[in-house]
Amino acid sequence: MDIINHQFRLATRPVGAVKRSDFTYTGEPVRALADGEVLVRIQYVSLDPAMRGWLNAGADSYMPPVAIGEVMRAIAVGRVTASNNAGFAVGDHVSGLMGVQEYAISNGQGLNKVNPALAPLPMFLSVLGMTGLTAYFGLFDIGQPKAGDTVVVSGAAGAVGAIVGQLAKAHGARVIGIAGGADKCRYLVEELGFDAAIDYKSEDVAAALKQHAPKGVDVFFDNVGGDILDTVLTRLAHGARIVICGAISQYNSTGAVQGPSNYMQLLVKRASMRGVMVADYYPRAMEAITAMGALLASGKLKSREDVVQGLETFPETFLKLFDGSNNGKLVLQVHA
Amino acid sequence: MDIINHQFRLATRPVGAVKRSDFTYTGEPVRALADGEVLVRIQYVSLDPAMRGWLNAGADSYMPPVAIGEVMRAIAVGRVTASNNAGFAVGDHVSGLMGVQEYAISNGQGLNKVNPALAPLPMFLSVLGMTGLTAYFGLFDIGQPKAGDTVVVSGAAGAVGAIVGQLAKAHGARVIGIAGGADKCRYLVEELGFDAAIDYKSEDVAAALKQHAPKGVDVFFDNVGGDILDTVLTRLAHGARIVICGAISQYNSTGAVQGPSNYMQLLVKRASMRGVMVADYYPRAMEAITAMGALLASGKLKSREDVVQGLETFPETFLKLFDGSNNGKLVLQVHA
Repeated sequence: MDIINHQFRLATRPVGAVKRSDFTYTGEPVRALADGEVLVRIQYVSLDPAMRGWLNAGADSYMPPVAIGEVMRAIAVGRVTASNNAGFAVGDHVSGLMGVQEYAISNGQGLNKVNPALAPLPMFLSVLGMTGLTAYFGLFDIGQPKAGDTVVVSGAAGAVGAIVGQLAKAHGARVIGIAGGADKCRYLVEELGFDAAIDYKSEDVAAALKQHAPKGVDVFFDNVGGDILDTVLTRLAHGARIVICGAISQYNSTGAVQGPSNYMQLLVKRASMRGVMVADYYPRAMEAITAMGALLASGKLKSREDVVQGLETFPETFLKLFDGSNNGKLVLQVHA
Repeated sequence: MDIINHQFRLATRPVGAVKRSDFTYTGEPVRALADGEVLVRIQYVSLDPAMRGWLNAGADSYMPPVAIGEVMRAIAVGRVTASNNAGFAVGDHVSGLMGVQEYAISNGQGLNKVNPALAPLPMFLSVLGMTGLTAYFGLFDIGQPKAGDTVVVSGAAGAVGAIVGQLAKAHGARVIGIAGGADKCRYLVEELGFDAAIDYKSEDVAAALKQHAPKGVDVFFDNVGGDILDTVLTRLAHGARIVICGAISQYNSTGAVQGPSNYMQLLVKRASMRGVMVADYYPRAMEAITAMGALLASGKLKSREDVVQGLETFPETFLKLFDGSNNGKLVLQVHA
């Protein structure tokens, strides 16, 4: 009996925010495995802002864009249900770039085994996956906070931001999160232990930074770009480090990206701005996973996943990243 | 007999490019010296793009703005003609922030003695002064070129840019200058030994960078900002370092500063952008002066000063920095 694999394939390059019509939802029988291949039944698909960038043609990016007709690229976690590869047994759980679909066939390259006895599967897409590595190495390698430093995180209630803030706090920094809405801000302070949170939707961010970071911002971990980056640039401390992790405010822009007008503050404050790319840190993944595992165990690091049911909801669920309606790491559940 | 000191005092905050009417040209008798003070007869006044920034109120800058009514701030070099300070004798030559005027009274703080037997006086305002220190430390401390790296300099025929390019070349880098006009470009290649020059007025800078820096730009020393910064951002090599020294294209802007739209390339290319502020390096000035003195002596570093006669020409002469009509370090000669 054929297994039918449902998939979202890119139909047309989105202009602005993605729409359902930018994709085709297809169903096709799973083909027979070749030698060395494994079949993975996908359980959870990670939804990440970076995926929006993978849809743009032409831009000089770190990966080729998803081709028209190709299955939408995404990191996922699932269970091996058939294997012609000695490295993987039926029943193994694996993560990797398996796409927005129900089943993936892989030659094993880029697949990582994960142990579901250690943590719930969605956590391997968040704190114990790419999200966690991005937060950990972006903060410590690029941001280099010292104890007592003031660390500001934008998109602070998002998947990466929430981890960054907690890691900085555990490291002895004073942590201020910028997020949209009173609920998220309350969550950051009351649940995650941030020292302060700024609601950019209702507060004057510059004034709030002046209040909460009177000596200036030593480390700014930016997931957002746009006006928030420009505002934080005006409140830097001497020698500040800005970590450029993302620019979610700009990903759906149909015009030119809003560059930081106040970038000359890098000169005035002898500050630096540097990008973090998680792929550079794969060889050091164990260092981060070990450190964060210990923090999870001790309760100093909390992970929250926002699990949405149903592969077929993909286009609309993905938009939750951009309208700010997700709570924690956004994950699509495909199979139980 | 009273000595009359002529001065340019700020009358009103300029909007856009400075105009003569933004200043008053005043003459007043030099007052008697107090204890500890010296009188300096100014010979040369340094004209620098940064001076435009000193005229803006409100901006969060590294120095308070020049006050209305205050003598226009500028670095100058001159000769001590009277002294009540044991540290300075009549006949000593000194440099420091003495202003756009004929005479300055100082308590000696911030004055540095210079030896006119070693080099012509204007050179103490260029390669042997702040300009040279900015180039040296910006390039080596922030840019950190390695032999074989491709170094790109904007404003390459300007005072700082020309030194940066020659220092990088002497250090074993491949050096590409961006400048305005065929004459300047010829000068960079034929006189200063740059490997290539790009005339941004007549060439497609992105295409020219692709041609001259096919492996990408390892170090970009930016004096210009605006479109040029945005274009170079698209041609970075992996791990590139961008030195933010100035943004002369933006200093006379009456709207918002044009921030670099392509700053997310810092992430794609794992690159950094950092400001250089020369004041941070005063304690290490001797290191730079010694190194550049040796290069000057060996002919590997050439200094060109564009000396304009007459204090009273200040407002118009200053504009030469912004219309690109100066050739080398722009200096105003006040007294022989």
